[in-house]
Parts: sequence; structure tokens; C-alpha cells
Amino acid sequence: MAPTLELLEKPTGIPPVKTVSATRNGTSAASDLKLESPEKHQRVMDVFRAVIADICQQYGEGHAGSPMGMAAIGIALWKYVMKYSPINCNYFNRDRFVLSNGHACLWQYLFLHLVGVKSMTLEQLKSYHSTKLDSVCPGHPEIENEGIEVTTGPLGQGLANAVGLAMATKNLAATYNKPGHDVVNNMTWCMVGDACLQEGVGLEALSLAGHWRLNNLCVIFDNNSVTCDGTADVANTEDINTKMRATGYNVVDVYNGDSDVAAVVNALVAARSSDKPTFINIRTTIGFGSAIAGTADVHGAALGVDEVARLKRSFGLNPEEHFHIPQDVYDFFSDIPGRGEAHEAAWQAALVKYHAENPILAAEFELRVAGKLSGDWTKCIPRKEEQPTASTASRKSAGVVTNALGQNINSFLVGTADLTPSCNVSYKNKVDFQSPELQTACGLNGNYSGRYIHYGIREHAMCAISNGLAAFNKGTFIPMTATYFVFHLYAAAAVRMAALQGLQQIHIATHDSIGVGENGPTHQPVAVAALYRAMPNVLYIRPCDAEEVAGAYIAAIQATETPTIISLSRQGLTQYPQHSSREGTLKGAYVFVEAEDDDFDVTLIGVGSEMGFAMQTRELLLKDHGIKSRVVSFPCIRLFEQQSREYKHSVLKPRAGKPSVVIEAYPSYGWERYADASVSMNSFGKSLPSKEIYEHYGFAPESITPKVKDLVEEVRRDGIGILRGDFRDFNGGLRIGFEH
Amino acid sequence: MAPTLELLEKPTGIPPVKTVSATRNGTSAASDLKLESPEKHQRVMDVFRAVIADICQQYGEGHAGSPMGMAAIGIALWKYVMKYSPINCNYFNRDRFVLSNGHACLWQYLFLHLVGVKSMTLEQLKSYHSTKLDSVCPGHPEIENEGIEVTTGPLGQGLANAVGLAMATKNLAATYNKPGHDVVNNMTWCMVGDACLQEGVGLEALSLAGHWRLNNLCVIFDNNSVTCDGTADVANTEDINTKMRATGYNVVDVYNGDSDVAAVVNALVAARSSDKPTFINIRTTIGFGSAIAGTADVHGAALGVDEVARLKRSFGLNPEEHFHIPQDVYDFFSDIPGRGEAHEAAWQAALVKYHAENPILAAEFELRVAGKLSGDWTKCIPRKEEQPTASTASRKSAGVVTNALGQNINSFLVGTADLTPSCNVSYKNKVDFQSPELQTACGLNGNYSGRYIHYGIREHAMCAISNGLAAFNKGTFIPMTATYFVFHLYAAAAVRMAALQGLQQIHIATHDSIGVGENGPTHQPVAVAALYRAMPNVLYIRPCDAEEVAGAYIAAIQATETPTIISLSRQGLTQYPQHSSREGTLKGAYVFVEAEDDDFDVTLIGVGSEMGFAMQTRELLLKDHGIKSRVVSFPCIRLFEQQSREYKHSVLKPRAGKPSVVIEAYPSYGWERYADASVSMNSFGKSLPSKEIYEHYGFAPESITPKVKDLVEEVRRDGIGILRGDFRDFNGGLRIGFEH
Repeated sequence: MAPTLELLEKPTGIPPVKTVSATRNGTSAASDLKLESPEKHQRVMDVFRAVIADICQQYGEGHAGSPMGMAAIGIALWKYVMKYSPINCNYFNRDRFVLSNGHACLWQYLFLHLVGVKSMTLEQLKSYHSTKLDSVCPGHPEIENEGIEVTTGPLGQGLANAVGLAMATKNLAATYNKPGHDVVNNMTWCMVGDACLQEGVGLEALSLAGHWRLNNLCVIFDNNSVTCDGTADVANTEDINTKMRATGYNVVDVYNGDSDVAAVVNALVAARSSDKPTFINIRTTIGFGSAIAGTADVHGAALGVDEVARLKRSFGLNPEEHFHIPQDVYDFFSDIPGRGEAHEAAWQAALVKYHAENPILAAEFELRVAGKLSGDWTKCIPRKEEQPTASTASRKSAGVVTNALGQNINSFLVGTADLTPSCNVSYKNKVDFQSPELQTACGLNGNYSGRYIHYGIREHAMCAISNGLAAFNKGTFIPMTATYFVFHLYAAAAVRMAALQGLQQIHIATHDSIGVGENGPTHQPVAVAALYRAMPNVLYIRPCDAEEVAGAYIAAIQATETPTIISLSRQGLTQYPQHSSREGTLKGAYVFVEAEDDDFDVTLIGVGSEMGFAMQTRELLLKDHGIKSRVVSFPCIRLFEQQSREYKHSVLKPRAGKPSVVIEAYPSYGWERYADASVSMNSFGKSLPSKEIYEHYGFAPESITPKVKDLVEEVRRDGIGILRGDFRDFNGGLRIGFEH
Repeated sequence: MAPTLELLEKPTGIPPVKTVSATRNGTSAASDLKLESPEKHQRVMDVFRAVIADICQQYGEGHAGSPMGMAAIGIALWKYVMKYSPINCNYFNRDRFVLSNGHACLWQYLFLHLVGVKSMTLEQLKSYHSTKLDSVCPGHPEIENEGIEVTTGPLGQGLANAVGLAMATKNLAATYNKPGHDVVNNMTWCMVGDACLQEGVGLEALSLAGHWRLNNLCVIFDNNSVTCDGTADVANTEDINTKMRATGYNVVDVYNGDSDVAAVVNALVAARSSDKPTFINIRTTIGFGSAIAGTADVHGAALGVDEVARLKRSFGLNPEEHFHIPQDVYDFFSDIPGRGEAHEAAWQAALVKYHAENPILAAEFELRVAGKLSGDWTKCIPRKEEQPTASTASRKSAGVVTNALGQNINSFLVGTADLTPSCNVSYKNKVDFQSPELQTACGLNGNYSGRYIHYGIREHAMCAISNGLAAFNKGTFIPMTATYFVFHLYAAAAVRMAALQGLQQIHIATHDSIGVGENGPTHQPVAVAALYRAMPNVLYIRPCDAEEVAGAYIAAIQATETPTIISLSRQGLTQYPQHSSREGTLKGAYVFVEAEDDDFDVTLIGVGSEMGFAMQTRELLLKDHGIKSRVVSFPCIRLFEQQSREYKHSVLKPRAGKPSVVIEAYPSYGWERYADASVSMNSFGKSLPSKEIYEHYGFAPESITPKVKDLVEEVRRDGIGILRGDFRDFNGGLRIGFEH
């Protein structure tokens, strides 16, 4: 594609960039831009590449190859096309940029430095891969740092995040923009390498963005044809352009991405006015300019002292100068801060006018800009006296809350990986998030203001896209997702990224124990909970009845920097209005049934849908054996660990010299901190109806009672010390499928 | 597409099917087949659909919709096209069939019954969703049952398994077939619904099969346009045919998949002689024949008594008869057992001839058919005296073993998700698994006999494809995979399926602690181990040095029904030739340094790459405080749990009244069974070099020693009972990112 933009013959100072005209996604119609000369671009790229080589050479490591290859793309983005403010990287209507190939972060860091982001000093740049604590230049981009929208690194995640960011814009625009008042109209630019286009999570997200016609998303492919293992065709020979067209993208080729800044600008500018998401396939050379350019050797390594010197000489630079950025290169970017401030000022001014004409809508919008919920969520939680008393599946109890939140508060987005009926997440008068074009084409109910999201059968993308929604502006959205708990294994890498970034979201995880029944062992989530209980900054909550479900939602909404998984039953659960408590749930564990006068033989710990077995066992122990038990409900380990030592001891009474037994249809692994014995699942399950599978694996008061009785008698006889080093797994220990 | 096969005007008995001619992938050139009349097909389909409706109606649940929609496809497969033997479902050269949309299992069960699989009685069919223990008709297909190649259900997995099965054939054929002797030439048929084409794992696997030109793979798309949430276009509007062509498939359309058996047969037969993998897009109607056909309501539900009766009447069947299969329908399939026996007999005869002409190759092949390794693996494990003594990264120690196994034994396939250099898995003279066509086109080193697999950046498909390789014929292949341990989160759902199915494989998981360093928190696998330690039938082994690495491989190879994850360091590790032991590793934990005369104050548990801290702390405790420690190495919790109580107590000495402290750069969660305190990671990490990040998080003898000293003194003063209910997390407990 030949550049169609006007090129200045010679640099004549910083050209003005005209302000916003009526394009679909923000500023910069192609004709508004005046580019500097190719020679000037080359000069900036030469310096850029040399500095990248210097930084990696310091410690003899780091990723130099992609940053050097992507120099022209960076100039096109940060100098010409992106709408942002280096003075205030977080201004609300900024274009979002995601570096999905996060290992190329040095590229982004250096551009942030050049355009004037204050925290990104040259000293900070030099701290890449150093021993500096809390450097703003970590080995992959981190959301905590200025100019970074999301933490990336695990490949494909950033691409899915970008889809979420673009959705956020579409939803806000459809909800709040009024004719003549585009208070939200930013683009989302996402840089990807080969990996993001190979990873399943990236492919799932790409399909959705195509389906949703997210024309405010531009995916920029750094097509350098090289991966760690060699040339990319060692594992991939598909026709990516045709594939992307079939997935609903406008596809644009750039053939000389190493130096043709104008062609890149052209393609990027065209993306703003596309009717579909845009995929720009840019051919670049990894490690451009180095002797090993175009090979895997330059992917994740420094070039070596001699080669860095040679490279500089070949660029006409002084090999003795390190980390040297001449003033003319800084000057090249010197218009950016002012332009950014102008962007932000224009947006602020537009907001004032908008507020004047749409005061109610503007008030809600401003709340959301401030990261506050747009409605009173407390009214969406049933009061204790409104809770059911008859047996109710906790997925149903949760549905009541989800539906109220989804229906009444614009901050909540409710989505599901094709399990609307099973997860009970649909609500009255819901509007789907869909392209309005599909409303006509397929007769679908929906438009971009819709807040019910059909993710298809794509759990990983669902959670990774939710990360983008949550990261758009923390607090503006609280994404909710819904699938079976076992499928949170598909999504695990995305949930981990939410936890790492402190992104709030609520995952409705139904069918959470062997009680799921006939679907069998593939669908019974044995062992999945251990992952989320061990994972920092995740709340994994298993409520035992509707009242605890209420507590779980309260915890999830209050946890503004934390993803929460609410783990729910398929089957009906006995309700315990006399015992269960939302306040107790918020403490993670609490006394469900106390012993009189501290006179007890054993503490039974009931968890989630297995609480019924604890309560029934308590009765049988007393009736048949005169054994007195107290019962503890334990919906959330992490919430419990936040409590004081005194509270914890008051709940579990570990020093009373009596044993504790936990009852949960998951492996015992991880319960040893709180219990001496367990009724648990240490194998995979079977395809049987709920009642029968529980019985088969020993979850029945008749099975549990004699085991607890024996334990109590043993402790009476030999003292509690007998249990040290002898955790009793009543259903057998951690199993393995072979004999030595 | 109009059927081009000869149709019989009237049924004239069972037509003979000619035996194998020289086609690329087994039997059945189109011209060899004679089809029964459309009327006969309709009759069989009517009965089939009525019986499906009856079975689901029994318990008012189950998946009736897809099985009813796929009736014609089933006839095409089981009556005409597939090469298999219902008398011996496991005969080696059978075509493999995978039902990736596993919820449609009733369809497969009923066809297995009709073609004469003995265990699949009518009584068993009626046990679907019943309380019958170990029914051969569980809610999803399970590998343990006759005629089921792999357990499916979690969507997308089966499709990736099918790619592995097709690779297995290609690799065996390229290794053992000789001109005139095709001892392996089976096809792999894989049925998919919408979901498998949306799930990332399916998309990754499809890309690879296209890249590898697996023309022995046929993906059959039951395109009924309906998912749980409604019409499929609610979440997907891509052009699937174009996308599949761009991914390297021959695409064939069948427009009337509800009844046009001939068109389906035609498409399937064409797949056998395709030069690429085949994708058959078959339009069907979910719940065909029922009043709610073509809607989501029929996906996962029974039809209702009245509707079942109406349906039967509409088919001209007697509504009073239930589960009724008339003799003429059985007769329709009555040639199958004989044909299957003939297939198998022909293969056995071919094998005899092959053996006579190629005795050495045949001997190895027969070993592998018997599920035995084709070489002496013990020679690939370095002897104790050959181990390094200088600091060595365990990824490097593992590389020595992997390379020997890969280089010398045909049973081992070594693959990586684009981390060949980092994971140290490449070996001398390796040949890549590639299509020979690409050797010409791209100059790639490889052909189908290659056993080094470049999976690209597709961890989930890598592990799911490995499941197919392992399931081809248990023991014929031991797949090995390699990636960073943190990316085992991407692959978790596939590893779980391996564990559930008892599939042996070895996962080389490098960069396994915060010691990975500069790549930062996204790459530091905090919390991932908890998943695999809790998961039934997985060996997660963290060796502390080269000798323990040897033990880990021995365990992995001996565990013939178990996936093993060998968890390895990026950074160099001190070697402990005086202490470490492969025999101890095989027991999961063992005494590394014993106390003299049982005189000790504390047991330090060192794990994997953190063993060094335990050993250094031991020295410092003694030197600075006169505190005597014993040290336990604990590479594998599950192996340890297999040991006798006596052995366990001899290692941990829980009754000695002394505390135990575990040192591992993962969360403490799960160690409470064995330790009273921990030095652990209960937050995510940071981007810092290995040494600095360890120090930052308190992993240094100078940090650990005073904490252990305090603990020892407290226990001396107050007794061991003081620790009950007070696990000491020296680095802080399970953290959360918000304040209440």
C-alpha cells in the first residue's frame, strides 16, 4: 500500500494536528495529519534502536529483538495517531493501548519516555532487568505504572483485554453519548506478535470482537515471522489475512514495517473509520539493524558489546555514547504533551456542555468516571427475612442477586459462556450486548448499551475480556461472568491475571461439587478449588444457603481490588435460617451451632453444599452415641485468614483438645490447617445422580457418624496429641493411579 | 452436493463391502460402497430417534437434541465408512472415532449397541442417567468403556485429542510402514459441535492439524446452529468454511444432514483420499422430528411423554412401544461384526507378512502394539556418579534425561510450546514432526517419523494433543511436553483430563519458582502447584538437584497410568551428592540430613529449588544459636502419601515434640499436614533478578534463621501444643488486596 498522506519535504518544525472532527472513533482523519520526512523518521528510529540495544546490553539480557523491529510502528502510534496525554496518562477518554506481546515492553517504555511521561526517566529505563525494587520498567508491563493499561506477558491475554477495553467504550458510548455529545469515543489499539494469534484465548477473543463488530478495536500484528523456536512457519502456516477476514475484520497490509512510518500511519488512521475491527498485518524484521536480525537468536538476548557498537556505527551514531538520546529526537516528540493536554481539555469542556444539557445522565456518568457504582447495590441483596426456607439450589439464590444487580445498576455487566439457563443469570428485560447491525441481520435482541453478554463457549476469553472491562477505569464496570466451576480451569490464567492486577469482578461458578451428578467426572470440579484458595488476592466463596449467598455477594462487591468466585450448587440445598449468617460469611468462617457451656466432643466443619451432611451427622452422633458436636460453617478460607487470632480461635477452638472434622466434596488438601480429619474427595467422581454419588463417596450421615465416633473415642482414650502427624482422610488419602 | 454413490433401488440384503484397496488412509474408496435405499435409511433413523427420545424420557433429562439431529451422520459412519470391529473395539489399526461434543454420547452409545458391541446392551442403554453404578453409559463418554477412544465432555478437548490420535498414526506409519506393508493406516474421525469450534483449545489444535497436513483427520461439524443460549449466531457469526480453508483444510458442505445419508457418506469417503485434513460442515436440525426441533429447548432436556408419543406416531411407530428396536433395524447393521473381524484378520495377516520381511522393525512395532517401551529407558538416566557437582539448573539436569530418552527411544515424543531453548529439550540429530510437503515448501527439517514437536505458542493444545497421543494405544507413546510451569495454567483442563483417563505423559515444567527472576510476577508460578498437588492422579515433582531429577524421571516412567509434571528451576542449584537420592525421591520425601541420636530442635523441610535455603539455614542455626536441625527433602507430596505410616513418621517425626518448618517459594496452603510453620510466598512476586527477589521475600538464611530460632524457643518454653491452631506463616498469611 502506497502512503497517501502528505509528506513534508523537509522538517519544518512540529506540524499542528487538527482537532477532532466528526469521525466514528475520535480524532485524526487521515487528511488531518502531516508527517515528518522519512529521513527524520529514520533518524528517530536509529536512535531508538541503539538505545534499546544499549539497555539490553547492560545486563546482557532482556528482549531487544521485537522492540527494535517495532520502531516505525511506535512512531506511528505515539507521534501521530494515538490520542493520549503523557501529562495525565489516565484521562478518561484516552485511547487505550495494550502491548499483548508484553515481552517487548522496552519498546513501550522508551516511547513513554520520549513523549514525556514523567515517571519514565532515563534512569528508570536503565533499571530494566536491574536489581532496582519497584522499577517502573519491570520485565513485562505492569498496570501499576503510568501509561500501562493492563499487565501483560502471558500471551494472548492482552489481546483479550483489548477486546474488553473496546467493549467498555462501546457500552459507555451507547449508554451516555448523545447527538453532538461524544463523551466517550476512544479507540483501543492492541499490539500482538505471532503468539497472541496462536494462543486459544486470543483466538476466542478475536472471534468475539469480530462478531460484535468492534470497529473501535485495531489489532496491530508485528509480523516478524520469528518465534523462540525459529521461523514462525515451524508451527504455523495458515493464511492469517483470510482467516481474519472470515472472522469479521478489515485487513490491511503494511509491507515495509521496518521503516515506512507513513504506511503504518495510513493503516492506523483508516482503522478509526472502519466499519469493522481492523487487523493490520505489518511485516517487520526482528532485531532490525543487528547482524542477527530476522532470526530467533535476537528474540530474547542482548546483542553483545561489539555488535551494539557496530550497529551504532552502521546507523551513523557514536558507539562510545550509551543511552544517548540527542535533543533533536526529543524535539521530534515535543508537541505531544501539549497536544495531549489539549485533548483532555477538549474532553473536559465537552463534558461541561454535556452536563448542562443532560444533567441526570451526566451525573451517573460522572459517578462512573469516578469509579463509583451507579446505583445502590445494597437494595439488590435480599434481606434475611426475604430468604427462602424450603430447599433451594444456591445457583438459584445467587440468580436472585445477579438479576437484581444486572437489571438495576449500569455498572454491572452480566455475561455467560453459553450457560444462561443453567447458571440462572438471565434477568427481566435484559438487553444483550450486540452490534446493532446484527439486530437487523440476525434478529438478535441487542445493541451496544446492552449489558448481558453472550460469550459463546469461550470461558477463557470471557474472563480475560472481563479483565479488560474491569481495567478500563477501575470501578466503572464490575464484570460478572457465569459458567460451571470446573470450566474455571479453562479460564484460570485469566483469573490469575485479574488477581495480580487487582481487578474486581464476580465469577458465578455453578455446579460446584460432585452434586452436579449425572454429567459425571469431567464436570465434577474435584481439585479446582485448591487453585483458587491458594491463589493470592482471590476470594473463593462456597455459601451453604441463600443467606450465605447474600454474604458472598456483599464480600464480592466490597472487594474492590479483588476477583471473587462465588461457588454454587446445581442441586437443592437445605436452608438454615436459624444458623446461617451473612455477617459470618463475611468473616470467612463462623460458628453455625455452638456447644452449650463449651461442652463438646468434636467440631464439624461444613462447607458449601456439604453443610447438610455436617448438620445431619451432628444429630446422628447425638442420637446414636451421645456425642456432642458443634458445627462451623466455612465458606471462605481467605476471608477467615484476615480475621484476628482471637476470632479464629473462638470459631475453631483448636486448644480445647477436641478433634475437628471437615466435610467437603473436594480433596482434603489445604484443610489441615483447620481440621484433623476429613470426609473428602481424593479421587475423581462418577456419573451418578446427586444423592447416589454423594452416598457412593461416603457423604451421608450414616457413613460419617461411625468414623467420627471412632475418632472421638480415640482422642478421649489417647489425647489429642495422637492426631499430630496423622491427618485422617476418612475417604482415603491423595490417590494415584499406579502401583510401584 | 449431489450424492454420486450408487444407490440401491430397493433393499436387497446387506451389500458386500470390498476390502482394502490402495488408498491413502485405509479402506473404502467411494466406488467400493453400495448404499441401502433412502427409505431404509429413513426407517433406521426414525427408530433411532424414537429410542433416543425414550431413553431421555425415562428420567426426564439428558441430552436428546444432538443425538436426534446426528442420526444420518451416525449411519454414514458406523454402517458405511468407519473401519472398526465391534467384537474387538481395541484392535490396533482401527479407525479412531472421537465424540468431541461429548454431551451427545447417547448417539454413540446407541450406535455401538446397534453394531453389536457386546457390553452395550439395551439394559445398559437404559441406565443412562440412572442410579446404576459403573454404567457403560455415563453422562459423557468415558475411555474405560468399549468403543470409546477418549473421555470427552469439556468442550474442545476431544478435537485436540483427535489431532493427537491422527499424529500417532502418521508417526507410526512413517516409522514402520514399508512399501507394500501398511501396518498402520487408520483414519481419525472427530465429531464436533459449535462449542469445539469456539473453544480456544479446539482452535489451537485445528491450526496445528492444518499446519501438519494431517490428511488422516476428518472433522465432522454437526452444524445445527443452536447452543444452550439460543441460536449460535448470538455469539458467533464468522465464516467458518473460509476460516477452515485458511487454516489448511479441505472443506466439504453437506446441506441436508438430517436425512441425506448418501451425501454424508460421500463427504466422509472423500476425506480418506484428501491431501489435507478435511472439515465437513453438515447442516442438521437439533432434536429432528420433535415439536421443538431447531431450538435451544431441545439441547439438554427430555421431550415430555406426550411429545415422545407424538414423535413416534409421526414416524409411523407405535407410541406404546418403548426402547423398541425392530429386527429389521438390527438386520441393517448385521454385517458389521463380520466386516470388522475381516478387517482385523486382514491386519493380522498383513502383520505376519510384514514381520517375515522386516523382522527387526516388526519386533519393535509389536513391542509398541503391546504397550511396551521400544528401548531400555534405564540407560537414559545418568548414574549417581555421573551427576554434576557444581551448581546446575535443574532444567539443565532434566535436559540430559529428556534428550537421551528422545534421542534413543521411539516411544518418546518430545514437544514444546515454542520454548526449545529455554526448556532444554532439544536433542542431537532430532527430527521434527512435520509434513514432508513443508520440507520442500519451507525448508523445514522434518517429516512424519520425526518425534520432536513444535506446538507453537499453544500450551493448552499441546497437552490436549498429548492426551490423544497417549490414548492411541496406551503405552505406544509417552508424550513429553515442555513449557514454563506458569503456563500449565493455560493447559490445566487438559492435564486434568489426562489424570482422569490415566494417560501417561511427562510434562517438563521449567522456570518453576520466583527464581525465574526478571520476567516478573506474570511468569512466577505462585499458586499453580496447589492445583496439581490437589488433583487426583497427578505426580507433581519438584526435584532439588540432578539426583532428584533422575528420581523424578524414574517415577514418571514407572507411573504408566499417570501424568507427571517435573518442576524445574531456571537458575543454577547447589548439588547435594552427599544427601540427595533418587530412591528417596521415589518415596516423595526423605531424610536429607538426619539428627544424631535423635537430638534435634527443629525439622526443616526443603522443597525443590528452595532446598539451598534449608541447608544454609541449618548451618546458621547451629553456628549462631546452637540450634540443631534435621533436614527433609520433599519433592512430591503424592508419592509420599503412598508410603506407610511408619515411613512417614520416620521422615517427619511428628511426635517428637519439635516443630517443622517448610521452605518453598509457593503459598503455604497445603503444607499444614506436614509442617507447623512456613517460609512461603503468599503474594504474587516482582520483576527482580533471582537472588534479589528471593531476598526480598525473605528467602535467605539470614532472614529465616531468627524466625526459626524464635519458634524453637517458644516450643521449648510452652510445648508443642502451643502450635495447634496456629500455623505460622513467617511471610504473612494468605493475602487479599482490600480492607474491610
